[in-house]
Amino acid sequence: MPELRQDPLTDTWVIIASERSKRPSDFASKKEGKKDSGSCPFCLGNEHMTPPEILAYRERGQSNTDGWSLRVIPNKFPVLQNEGQADKDTIGLYEKMHGVGAHEVIVETPDHNRPLGEESEEHIFGILKAWQSRYLDLKKDPRIQYTQLFKNHGAVAGASLSHPHSQLIATPLVPKNVIEELEGIERFYKKEGKCYFCESVEFEKKDRARIVAENNAFIAFCPYAARFPFETWIVPHKHSEYFEESSDEELRSLASILKRTISSLSQALEDPPYNLVVHSAPYRMNEGQRYHWHIEILPRLTIVAGFEWGTGFYINPTPPESAAGYLRQTH
Amino acid sequence: MPELRQDPLTDTWVIIASERSKRPSDFASKKEGKKDSGSCPFCLGNEHMTPPEILAYRERGQSNTDGWSLRVIPNKFPVLQNEGQADKDTIGLYEKMHGVGAHEVIVETPDHNRPLGEESEEHIFGILKAWQSRYLDLKKDPRIQYTQLFKNHGAVAGASLSHPHSQLIATPLVPKNVIEELEGIERFYKKEGKCYFCESVEFEKKDRARIVAENNAFIAFCPYAARFPFETWIVPHKHSEYFEESSDEELRSLASILKRTISSLSQALEDPPYNLVVHSAPYRMNEGQRYHWHIEILPRLTIVAGFEWGTGFYINPTPPESAAGYLRQTH
Repeated sequence: MPELRQDPLTDTWVIIASERSKRPSDFASKKEGKKDSGSCPFCLGNEHMTPPEILAYRERGQSNTDGWSLRVIPNKFPVLQNEGQADKDTIGLYEKMHGVGAHEVIVETPDHNRPLGEESEEHIFGILKAWQSRYLDLKKDPRIQYTQLFKNHGAVAGASLSHPHSQLIATPLVPKNVIEELEGIERFYKKEGKCYFCESVEFEKKDRARIVAENNAFIAFCPYAARFPFETWIVPHKHSEYFEESSDEELRSLASILKRTISSLSQALEDPPYNLVVHSAPYRMNEGQRYHWHIEILPRLTIVAGFEWGTGFYINPTPPESAAGYLRQTH
Repeated sequence: MPELRQDPLTDTWVIIASERSKRPSDFASKKEGKKDSGSCPFCLGNEHMTPPEILAYRERGQSNTDGWSLRVIPNKFPVLQNEGQADKDTIGLYEKMHGVGAHEVIVETPDHNRPLGEESEEHIFGILKAWQSRYLDLKKDPRIQYTQLFKNHGAVAGASLSHPHSQLIATPLVPKNVIEELEGIERFYKKEGKCYFCESVEFEKKDRARIVAENNAFIAFCPYAARFPFETWIVPHKHSEYFEESSDEELRSLASILKRTISSLSQALEDPPYNLVVHSAPYRMNEGQRYHWHIEILPRLTIVAGFEWGTGFYINPTPPESAAGYLRQTH
């Protein structure tokens, strides 16, 4: 069973994934880089290589055979598991918790070589519907407080298989970064009487310097204090706390702006490695807490090194105004 | 002039290093990996390739010629600069600040191929004395609130030159991570009436499972909630807030345990990439604030990806108890 441990000083939680415990020699060999083996477990016909599917879009065939256009499966090496309760325990100065949760993979397409930005808007809409469906399903589990949906694209960004896929990890507590955002939003609301994200969208629409793309429901922009070169956020115009409560119409608009943003990044930066992260509200918010869901796309072009680990500062060599300008030129 | 920008939601500061502003093509070419060019600016005889030295240990020769055993120089591409004042300004919802500070490089040895762990204890003591001297000198500048000393070893850990060196960046404000630690220490002190680090050292010495090495003045251990496989902290037994106030005797003990720890990591993991980060107190602490300086060594064997960026959680596949066990076996 994986274990959650907390650093009592900074409240950072760590998942000690002890079931895939690694010895020194496992890391030494990793230096050679990961390669896709000949048979990719996410490709058509290799359904037997993955755990049984949770969800699939298929025109024909039975579960766990070919004939699908999208599959959701449990991660074969889950960092959190759907067993037992999230019991807390104290070890001297420290706290730990059972690693209860879920870890799933969304295989976005049967086509090993078709990245997200090259899919049709209709297909991307289908992927977003699958994300939504998993958010809503996991919400029913009272042990789960938060679902983190993310996509790692490229080996440098942590993708161990190149077949297009996204993942989710559902956690038994609200993550530190989300708590920080909730507190920031609350602080801003108390001071200004408004949602920070709503205000920020207004400001960016007036300023225009950092806008990458816009449509009827969303704005894509490089944030003023971008941590990474070409970091781009996609934020709904409408104040809305939960990604999973989006209407089909909204998800179609999201599919459109997501395709455009990812294509722009891919064109400007020659298919860069990136992490895509959905920020949605915790399943059960406290009285008075507010959120405004959004997506952050973090190209991995710089290395986070000693200075950043020590301070929490980031160094960004590309002003977001320049980055947005380059990305707009690709349209 | 570089610019500091703040994310108002999470208080994260970003250095927009606009003077080394990068265009998309600069990143595309970077994919090929960095190589040391034939002539390394940190090697003997190439002193003209760097800005004039701030400090050097030399048995012979004039400043900025050969004959040295250690040099401190300004970074040729500084992310913060020693000009003007750290004036704050407001841009709509956001805050920015002039990028005042310092960015220096400590060239640890003339020998391009001798990593830190292979230096003599006496030479490492000299490096630590150079660090100390720069901390104390920068403390005199009233614009500087914090000095972050760090070492990036290996390209994966962000070292753009392989010649052994460490760096410091001095900032006009106290970094977020340090504020979090100060708050954590204060919280613990209010509850327990003791310093968290002092207690933690006591606990580790009793528990023993996570200890890597010990001597009269320091303990090296893998922390209970280690974020990274083989993460190792070196903490002084004596409660002490400032690294730069260490006595020569203490720095000799530090040189010894540092050499042993780095050698163990290098032996167990075949010269892994790592970041080494000194955590010392801010130059001017507020009333009631407390700190306990220490060093964190963070091997870079895993990739921080979407889940971590979204949540602030870390996934560590090697329990610190196992990591410490492997490292102890190398002695």
